[in-house]
Amino acid sequence: MWQLYQFPLCPFSRKVRLVLGEKGVGYEPVRESPWLRRDEFLDMNPAGQVPVMADDRGVVLIDSVAICEFFEETVSKAALLGGTAADRAEIRRLVAWFDVQFFRDITGPLLNERMIKRIVHRATPDSGALREAMKAAVAHLDYIDFLLDHRTWLGGSTMSLADLAAAAQISVADYLGGIDWKSHEQAKRWYVGMKSRPSFRPLLAERMESINPPSDYEKLDL
Amino acid sequence: MWQLYQFPLCPFSRKVRLVLGEKGVGYEPVRESPWLRRDEFLDMNPAGQVPVMADDRGVVLIDSVAICEFFEETVSKAALLGGTAADRAEIRRLVAWFDVQFFRDITGPLLNERMIKRIVHRATPDSGALREAMKAAVAHLDYIDFLLDHRTWLGGSTMSLADLAAAAQISVADYLGGIDWKSHEQAKRWYVGMKSRPSFRPLLAERMESINPPSDYEKLDL
Repeated sequence: MWQLYQFPLCPFSRKVRLVLGEKGVGYEPVRESPWLRRDEFLDMNPAGQVPVMADDRGVVLIDSVAICEFFEETVSKAALLGGTAADRAEIRRLVAWFDVQFFRDITGPLLNERMIKRIVHRATPDSGALREAMKAAVAHLDYIDFLLDHRTWLGGSTMSLADLAAAAQISVADYLGGIDWKSHEQAKRWYVGMKSRPSFRPLLAERMESINPPSDYEKLDL
Repeated sequence: MWQLYQFPLCPFSRKVRLVLGEKGVGYEPVRESPWLRRDEFLDMNPAGQVPVMADDRGVVLIDSVAICEFFEETVSKAALLGGTAADRAEIRRLVAWFDVQFFRDITGPLLNERMIKRIVHRATPDSGALREAMKAAVAHLDYIDFLLDHRTWLGGSTMSLADLAAAAQISVADYLGGIDWKSHEQAKRWYVGMKSRPSFRPLLAERMESINPPSDYEKLDL
């Protein structure tokens, strides 16, 4: 049985959990708060970040991209990197886009202002930083609308790792009140479709202590 | 013929160039300064980052991880992600380690202090930030020594993408005077081996305008 070290609002752990859900891989979630920098965890992953997966045979997988590629290679069910080499490059480009740019501009600042400051520093969020993140979210939703003007799914004609990476980041930003769907009908329809997948339900049911999501966070009709 | 949009001290472009060199893929380098945020370049890559590769048939590859995976999938010569799925996960973990942590702690700050400040802001580097980066470099060289205590190459028993990712970052940090090899004999031997590969020679011969590397930058006996 795989163990997954993660915390409820980690967007990279959510991406991995969606992959595991789509592929039908069972796992036991293990709560890890990377900001505590626990010695045993740092011994396992010197980068100090979740997600990390470990199994009973001593295999340890570190880094969300490496973990997703591992299960794509070892579980043929629900291919998430399909098509030609160029199609896969486009999917991987978008995974990096959401992992890096969306996280840097939106999910990262929201987690810092609304979670880390509350849990670690006992401080109040900076409203300027929150406004910047919400403005950046609008630009990212515009880009999702643009992609969906040309394609059925974000990465191409089938559901792929790009959709899971995007939905993982958006779900965390949405939990933290950073997403306003107004005038993003296409992106909203796509996200409601993602939310209704069985792989998404366990994530949406989870709560982070002392931080509540908006009332429509779990709803399938936004 | 592929075109590679890059600038001489971009560590991610260097990683891609090493892959192309090892695989024997020809390409024409096209100078792109991403800090200028050229409209035509942003139209091609909304993330605004190099490397980007384009060919005559209209294929555009964006993001260094996606590009490396593309050539690993399409050119069988010189496999850079060999072994079992778990071996490949370990290689990909290390690629992320050097792309993300090494860049964040060392190459990124060095580029900012010694290149961006000079070229864009006409400002002097912050000596505190430079000291921090050089201290972080010692910790990373320690980690490379630790890996080489257990393995012939960073990612396992054969030369892999992990070695190229690490050497690409280190070569930029070295150019910018951020690497001190003292008491890192193992890491130094490994790096001299990387420098002596034919794929490395064109990179070492290149210069960034108005920034000179240390005298031993190209030398094979450090």
